[in-house]
Amino acid sequence: MGMIGGGRDSFIGDVHRKAASIDGMIELVCGAFSSSSEKSVKSGMDLYLQEDRCYGTFEEMILKEAELPENERMDFVAIVTPNHMHFEPAKMALENGFHVICDKPMTLTLKEAEELQSIVEKSGLLFALTHNYTGHPMVKQAKELVSNGDLGRIRKVQVQYLQGWLATSVEKTGQKQASWRTDPKRSGIGGALGDIGTHAENLVEYITGLKIEELAADLGVFGDGRTLDDDGNILLRLDNGAKGTMSISQIAVGEENNLAIKVYGQKGSIEWHQEEPNKLITHWLDEPVKIYTPNGNSLYPMALETSRIPAGHPEGYLEAFATIYKGFAKDILALINGEKDLEGQYPTVYDGLRGMKFIYGAVESNKNNSAWVKL
Amino acid sequence: MGMIGGGRDSFIGDVHRKAASIDGMIELVCGAFSSSSEKSVKSGMDLYLQEDRCYGTFEEMILKEAELPENERMDFVAIVTPNHMHFEPAKMALENGFHVICDKPMTLTLKEAEELQSIVEKSGLLFALTHNYTGHPMVKQAKELVSNGDLGRIRKVQVQYLQGWLATSVEKTGQKQASWRTDPKRSGIGGALGDIGTHAENLVEYITGLKIEELAADLGVFGDGRTLDDDGNILLRLDNGAKGTMSISQIAVGEENNLAIKVYGQKGSIEWHQEEPNKLITHWLDEPVKIYTPNGNSLYPMALETSRIPAGHPEGYLEAFATIYKGFAKDILALINGEKDLEGQYPTVYDGLRGMKFIYGAVESNKNNSAWVKL
Amino acid sequence: MGMIGGGRDSFIGDVHRKAASIDGMIELVCGAFSSSSEKSVKSGMDLYLQEDRCYGTFEEMILKEAELPENERMDFVAIVTPNHMHFEPAKMALENGFHVICDKPMTLTLKEAEELQSIVEKSGLLFALTHNYTGHPMVKQAKELVSNGDLGRIRKVQVQYLQGWLATSVEKTGQKQASWRTDPKRSGIGGALGDIGTHAENLVEYITGLKIEELAADLGVFGDGRTLDDDGNILLRLDNGAKGTMSISQIAVGEENNLAIKVYGQKGSIEWHQEEPNKLITHWLDEPVKIYTPNGNSLYPMALETSRIPAGHPEGYLEAFATIYKGFAKDILALINGEKDLEGQYPTVYDGLRGMKFIYGAVESNKNNSAWVKL
Amino acid sequence: MGMIGGGRDSFIGDVHRKAASIDGMIELVCGAFSSSSEKSVKSGMDLYLQEDRCYGTFEEMILKEAELPENERMDFVAIVTPNHMHFEPAKMALENGFHVICDKPMTLTLKEAEELQSIVEKSGLLFALTHNYTGHPMVKQAKELVSNGDLGRIRKVQVQYLQGWLATSVEKTGQKQASWRTDPKRSGIGGALGDIGTHAENLVEYITGLKIEELAADLGVFGDGRTLDDDGNILLRLDNGAKGTMSISQIAVGEENNLAIKVYGQKGSIEWHQEEPNKLITHWLDEPVKIYTPNGNSLYPMALETSRIPAGHPEGYLEAFATIYKGFAKDILALINGEKDLEGQYPTVYDGLRGMKFIYGAVESNKNNSAWVKL
Repeated sequence: MGMIGGGRDSFIGDVHRKAASIDGMIELVCGAFSSSSEKSVKSGMDLYLQEDRCYGTFEEMILKEAELPENERMDFVAIVTPNHMHFEPAKMALENGFHVICDKPMTLTLKEAEELQSIVEKSGLLFALTHNYTGHPMVKQAKELVSNGDLGRIRKVQVQYLQGWLATSVEKTGQKQASWRTDPKRSGIGGALGDIGTHAENLVEYITGLKIEELAADLGVFGDGRTLDDDGNILLRLDNGAKGTMSISQIAVGEENNLAIKVYGQKGSIEWHQEEPNKLITHWLDEPVKIYTPNGNSLYPMALETSRIPAGHPEGYLEAFATIYKGFAKDILALINGEKDLEGQYPTVYDGLRGMKFIYGAVESNKNNSAWVKL
Repeated sequence: MGMIGGGRDSFIGDVHRKAASIDGMIELVCGAFSSSSEKSVKSGMDLYLQEDRCYGTFEEMILKEAELPENERMDFVAIVTPNHMHFEPAKMALENGFHVICDKPMTLTLKEAEELQSIVEKSGLLFALTHNYTGHPMVKQAKELVSNGDLGRIRKVQVQYLQGWLATSVEKTGQKQASWRTDPKRSGIGGALGDIGTHAENLVEYITGLKIEELAADLGVFGDGRTLDDDGNILLRLDNGAKGTMSISQIAVGEENNLAIKVYGQKGSIEWHQEEPNKLITHWLDEPVKIYTPNGNSLYPMALETSRIPAGHPEGYLEAFATIYKGFAKDILALINGEKDLEGQYPTVYDGLRGMKFIYGAVESNKNNSAWVKL
Repeated sequence: MGMIGGGRDSFIGDVHRKAASIDGMIELVCGAFSSSSEKSVKSGMDLYLQEDRCYGTFEEMILKEAELPENERMDFVAIVTPNHMHFEPAKMALENGFHVICDKPMTLTLKEAEELQSIVEKSGLLFALTHNYTGHPMVKQAKELVSNGDLGRIRKVQVQYLQGWLATSVEKTGQKQASWRTDPKRSGIGGALGDIGTHAENLVEYITGLKIEELAADLGVFGDGRTLDDDGNILLRLDNGAKGTMSISQIAVGEENNLAIKVYGQKGSIEWHQEEPNKLITHWLDEPVKIYTPNGNSLYPMALETSRIPAGHPEGYLEAFATIYKGFAKDILALINGEKDLEGQYPTVYDGLRGMKFIYGAVESNKNNSAWVKL
Repeated sequence: MGMIGGGRDSFIGDVHRKAASIDGMIELVCGAFSSSSEKSVKSGMDLYLQEDRCYGTFEEMILKEAELPENERMDFVAIVTPNHMHFEPAKMALENGFHVICDKPMTLTLKEAEELQSIVEKSGLLFALTHNYTGHPMVKQAKELVSNGDLGRIRKVQVQYLQGWLATSVEKTGQKQASWRTDPKRSGIGGALGDIGTHAENLVEYITGLKIEELAADLGVFGDGRTLDDDGNILLRLDNGAKGTMSISQIAVGEENNLAIKVYGQKGSIEWHQEEPNKLITHWLDEPVKIYTPNGNSLYPMALETSRIPAGHPEGYLEAFATIYKGFAKDILALINGEKDLEGQYPTVYDGLRGMKFIYGAVESNKNNSAWVKL
């Protein structure tokens, strides 16, 4: 694995590296960690990389690595830069024969997303998007309960992703994470929408197997001097007639990463909370509440297979993230081994495009005083 | 107290009676429990009433009681009938000099509500509406945290009231509660909106001290053969610029009475769940999560005064309901004692009117494909 | 009902009155609320009693009431005094033909308890002890899960009752509750043991249907200047070979009324917490965790019958307490109606005797450096 | 790192490898994964090791590695075998100049533990024991709250470690984990005592900074045909006069890994649950309940430093385990760099010896019908 972005003071780069390492299938071999060549080398040295594989630019990394012998060069690129730096590296990596795993939202603009989709399709290479929350065993179990019909036809969805870290104008203090996320040039047209709304949108579509057909959004900009949304309240209509709400916020004081979802069918319902990810709460027409746990009783295979350790030993954020990397690595390995049937257990360019459509749809609806917009 | 409605197979009549009795201030002395005189007498006898004060009609009760000596006759009327039977008894009771406490929603139609408001105003008598959830000590504490400025300016609200008991078409089985609640003639133009949505609306306005200025509603009718909403997803805008969502449902399988609210200010936030009413969860910019409990540490007076028993001994639904009755009884007693300053610790006809406006606003918005409607 | 004790600044008297009133079956008609005749009258007047039925002593009350016509006089006596004032009033009431309901622990001494048992047996009258926690629907459900064999043979029990209100020496501040509870003359040889340990002991025996055969106790006296235990750690052996622990404390800072129990059988287990009494958490060999709720799905009859209001509307401490009173009232009514089969749904003099044996056994074990003592 | 044990069907070997890899400081370079040379090589190949560093015996590994150049050979040995195979490899590794990190309990017998202590002391090398639960940030915060005096003098402790996986006699089915844990030859004189009791004991001593001075144990053997304890109820007395209970079980049906601890001081108390490790619940004399979270507000440095990712993104079992490895690796690195001040942020041989004394003390007490035994 070669990494683009993720230098010394990056938060998400470190997460990607830890996640990639957990299952012992992936080794970081090179990186273009920073736009400054010097910083890139320093970051790489921190990580015990060879100095000559710590590159000053992603272009250099891609070209130099492509020249290395096949069994030496990186197998894929991990892109962990801010949003405006996703498309170009992804494009170039794919065009030079490297698989790509990329942070979300997929691109800066919808146009880029559409273009990237066609680049991926032409390339025949793998592209994964790190909607990491879909890696949790209990999210898998939820998906299975829906797809196996246990819940019956889905009628209602509630999803929220609430944070409070932008409740004050921390971007004015030089906080790096806040700075680019509140800057349209680096973040795109969505603020909270892109950063956390896309996770909420993806989780709904992943678990239900349905599409958000249309939405009506009322976005808020509460932070002093901000131009991008830091809060959003959204009505949802899914493509099977189900309805729902989405609430996202980065100004919800005191909330840490309160991503949660409820899905109600005709016969049963599920409830999952990211901050306590090892419980899946389910309700039923005629039975008591049932709670599933990773590696616990009565799980579907997909939930069992993604549980690493014995029941009652909590897995967390990094492990779920690692499950995305593991799925991606398995498919790369399968390709290397000449296998044809890939498992595809990770979000793809199509999920990335859905995310961008969601952002654009919500912004458009909000401009039109919350009129319904089809995605 | 004289009761109108609440005969043998009524659920809510029994609740009102238990709630009225808890604090030892109120005695049930008469009732018109049923439209059948015979049934009314039987219901009254079950309750150890005198046979001659078990009336066949509310008209009879009001007239006969009015003729009794002042120290013998009922002091007030409790109306616990279905919605279409609220207005006439309330009007007649008030016009005959009796205070009224009435179940919600206040009336069948908005017009009735407006008329009732002016009747109450003319009468100089007390009118209370049993939005019982505002009686919980932790709801009082939440209100105090807002009104004392601890949370700062309010920015975001999430409220939900989720039930699952109408997930199947139980009204077709002859279930009495379901039958009238799904019937526009007895319920009004709102289904879930009137039955539980008004509680959610009232709770938002009670805790925040703000008004819902406008809303955008997407209502659902999932039950087979129904005409009234049994589900709703609603965007809210409050009169200080705060935004929010409301989610209500009676088809949310397995949910019992999941009324919950979160209110986010600039400096702190509160979270309260009706099913675990003895916790108030609060989050803060720079402090750990704090949880308040009834009769626990660091409470505001209003929360302390409404806690009956030592901390850690849970009070529940009936006690909160009783707090509404107690507040009402205290004000009646104050009037009897010739006091001028009433405490007014209960929802009034103005809250009832807000509820009816909410129902009508949501129905109108829904008809216009979720366009914003001002209340 | 006539009440002995429970005057103006009593906590538990008010609880008994509220609990007795909830189900509309019991009316307070007289009382000897205080050892001062004047105070007793004042307390009675607060409660809207007739002045001539507010007595200065329990002896006066029992004698005077016994002289009243049968349909006028009180049907039973409720004793809500400190422990040292249980036996004499109970004895006299029974000997004068009145049923008795009494607060716990049953008596000041074990000897009194044994004597009271034989008095009750001779009297042919009803005697109930207010181990109120057994009135919770989810405690009933737990009992049913055991007695119906769902859990299999019981192997392990954990019970705790933790409070923190005596963490500092509040008895020195004149706090009335603390004052008598830390005084051996009024409390007996057990401090926390009698006040809360007996509840824990009773809960174990009620739910499991087993007896605590022997115990090994290590008691603590942490409060400055105290002589009675304010903390206890106890090993338990039940009469079927099961083992367990009991932890009780009144110096567990910040704990409110943290009574909780877990019972493990060969096939399943139950967990119940008094502070969240409307959940019964169960674990199973091969099934997911299941949570039962009052009036929720899949309950045994005894749990259903003791749930007053719809699922999801919490009942609390007073309602569970009321269930004891209701059971007692039903049996008195049955006797009045000449019925022979009583339901007996309340703790009796035998439970009271068990409680006293528990206190004495624990004190003895503690004196012998935690040697095992048979009860 | 070179690993001893942890071949293909080992559970704990995989955990150690994942934990060691998370922070990017440790690389697995060799192993003696199995007593069969062939299996060892296969296991090593699964892990992408060089074939010639997959050894057939630990003796071979230690000797061969010791011959490699200093910058090539392993820096330390990780011992992840069953208990009876801890002492010999640890001894030989230390005597050949390798630091050792070892699974718990430290040895098969108390004698071995005492001998190992003196070997470590003589060696001048580092020895770490993987009491992994002390790696959780909220356990660190708990320790800091005690050591900084926030809780005041400690008075009471409750600790439990409850599992249900041995509720039936799974060892008879050939389940490998159950097989050696129920076999005295491989497990030692303690069953549940050694496997999970030592974790509970260590957690008490780690958080409180106190020693368990004496204990009184009642052990159970519920599994059919077993000789070692699978359940235990234990009274504790700490060396400052505090008292407490410990409950451990492997037959507590349905429990997964329910390790939990409560510590009560004069001024405050803490409560922590391993299954929800990212919350530290605290109670206070005069303040509301406060809940701390990793990377959340108001933490002590030790808790902050061990939190890897932003607040609200749960860390779990592997991360806490990794924190032990990280502390160990930091000290090895410090030694390599010639630094003198080591941080020592991991359990040591002295903790291991305490654990063995705990096992032996509990077994002795149990033999003497739960008499108190000094550790």
